Amino acid sequence: MENKNIMDYETVELDDQENALVIIDQTKLPGKTEIIRLKTAQEMWDAIYLLQVRGAPAIGVAAAFGIYLLAKQIQAADYEAFYSEFKKQKEYLDSSRPTAVNLSWALNRMEKKVTDSKDKPVEEIKALLREEAIAIKEEDIRVCRTIGEYGLSLVKPGDGILTHCNAGQLATSKYGTATAPIYLGEERGYHFHVFADETRPLLQGARLTAYELLSSGVDVTLICDNMAATVMKNGWVNAVFVGCDRVAANGDTANKIGTSSVAIAADYYHIPVYICAPTSTIDMNTATGAEIHIEERPAEEITEMWYKERMAPEGVKVFNPAFDVTDHNLIAGIVTEYGIATAPFEESFREIFARKEEAKGKIR
Amino acid sequence: MENKNIMDYETVELDDQENALVIIDQTKLPGKTEIIRLKTAQEMWDAIYLLQVRGAPAIGVAAAFGIYLLAKQIQAADYEAFYSEFKKQKEYLDSSRPTAVNLSWALNRMEKKVTDSKDKPVEEIKALLREEAIAIKEEDIRVCRTIGEYGLSLVKPGDGILTHCNAGQLATSKYGTATAPIYLGEERGYHFHVFADETRPLLQGARLTAYELLSSGVDVTLICDNMAATVMKNGWVNAVFVGCDRVAANGDTANKIGTSSVAIAADYYHIPVYICAPTSTIDMNTATGAEIHIEERPAEEITEMWYKERMAPEGVKVFNPAFDVTDHNLIAGIVTEYGIATAPFEESFREIFARKEEAKGKIR
Repeated sequence: MENKNIMDYETVELDDQENALVIIDQTKLPGKTEIIRLKTAQEMWDAIYLLQVRGAPAIGVAAAFGIYLLAKQIQAADYEAFYSEFKKQKEYLDSSRPTAVNLSWALNRMEKKVTDSKDKPVEEIKALLREEAIAIKEEDIRVCRTIGEYGLSLVKPGDGILTHCNAGQLATSKYGTATAPIYLGEERGYHFHVFADETRPLLQGARLTAYELLSSGVDVTLICDNMAATVMKNGWVNAVFVGCDRVAANGDTANKIGTSSVAIAADYYHIPVYICAPTSTIDMNTATGAEIHIEERPAEEITEMWYKERMAPEGVKVFNPAFDVTDHNLIAGIVTEYGIATAPFEESFREIFARKEEAKGKIR
Repeated sequence: MENKNIMDYETVELDDQENALVIIDQTKLPGKTEIIRLKTAQEMWDAIYLLQVRGAPAIGVAAAFGIYLLAKQIQAADYEAFYSEFKKQKEYLDSSRPTAVNLSWALNRMEKKVTDSKDKPVEEIKALLREEAIAIKEEDIRVCRTIGEYGLSLVKPGDGILTHCNAGQLATSKYGTATAPIYLGEERGYHFHVFADETRPLLQGARLTAYELLSSGVDVTLICDNMAATVMKNGWVNAVFVGCDRVAANGDTANKIGTSSVAIAADYYHIPVYICAPTSTIDMNTATGAEIHIEERPAEEITEMWYKERMAPEGVKVFNPAFDVTDHNLIAGIVTEYGIATAPFEESFREIFARKEEAKGKIR
């Protein structure tokens, strides 16, 4: 894959011939673009656990393909024996990252396909599992692409776009969320100028976003997080697009640490901030951002990780929150696959969820 | 010096017995606290060039002690021979960092002492050079200490203080500028809670500020630059103190990249930002920050430096400005050794310079 456009590949793929789950090993990026083929349950478990595949949607798709491939190898001819073995494999995969919501969600959906089909021959159930896994991936791609279309309507050709962390193709099956408008724009000759924050401490912006945009031919410039305000002041940014981990009912948005800094600076320089959020990340049961618990991570991520030697004095206290909450009043729009929510967000989200229900009705 | 309080030491010292310029090797921090003794012109030149001693005031003091020690060794008994040799050594030291204003300033001041004393015996000139170098250092300490006193008047015991980059003792002879209120407060039992931004890309906050505050017993917490807004939102910061490289007549302030981000976030959370600035850094000939030229530095500082391996894709564009300009309207006060300037700054600066002139008059 060296020197090839990353858009020719997909983050997670199924190889039917070789019975393999095919992924880009994200722990090797950006130094090495290595495609790995996972065949055993152990290999799949390790890949998720070690973050060789990461990003909630991408993990979900990997787990769906993974459990299909493992189910395919089950020898049992009768349903009970098949289901018992399926269940064992499913629980094993599910244990790889216990807190990843999309992992359980995708595996439960696959299990439901099995239990819903218990009167069918095992071989037919296997075929249905394959279809379901492909459907999960296709839905992910469709959601991202639709978010991209809505996002693209907010910018003009030649615009400067700033993004933080990686809500890109590498976190999803294709397009990404925050990067979807960028990729679609690139396909249509918009020629955006993208600024990627490096995103301390884990450097997802430098390692992943800069990598995937550069390899797709997008004009991307890497900056340190503390340079975003200067880039804005220089007049180089027309819009900010970021992803999110959870959106509260009032529009407050939890995303990678540093997002709120970017939003405050953008507000100061009158630049709109757009959150790209599949409706699955909007949590109407969380009233405001104050209710969102922020995970704190180990000090070593700041003081030692990546470095040749420790870069801070031994014994110094460290505060390392993984996320922050951006106030809803700093957000110009929340871009979902069912349209763009604007303030007041709670009302706007209700309209979006109504649209989603209506669409589901049409499919039924 | 391991495990000893850094306040027991000085960044730059004169050892009369051993004829040595004594410094802490800042390139080894924070891993190793190594005191080095410089005796030859070559050793002094290297120390400045290699940033073993850094920070404008500290470089000036090091150069003054250095040229005194070199002058002391000149064998010539008559003035002309002495001055000719002095001039040679001075020019050599001056070439170590051609853009450092304080280096030339201190060396020129030492040279003036020689030429003003040409009718005196060489031995007496040497003694006068010693006095002048000590005076330069004492003035630096006095300026920093006075800035500390004024700064201290702006905060209360137990306050949370956030700082960016290193405007600490390691950049001056003692106390630092932005850290001076912190050190003075610590001496008086104020027990501040300090947050030090790591300050990408060169990590002066992690490597130097966290180190010197920790070793002085100050309660310091290291954060990534993009976490400052969260620390503010959590209500942990009562004031921001930072240093500066140049202040324009209207109060716009150039300082290490990221300072303006901190100031914008502080403004959003209604936290006052104080710039600690010796009057020597206030440039009344620069009308506004727009006239301040911002140095851009090599991409490698962001993509490779400190790391075990390159952390960004090969060929990616990088924007790496070393400084930014903080708008004067984001600044609550500019703390000088002649008082605290407030908006409108131009007027306030004129009063401060008048006070400075008056003080000079009294000394005469």
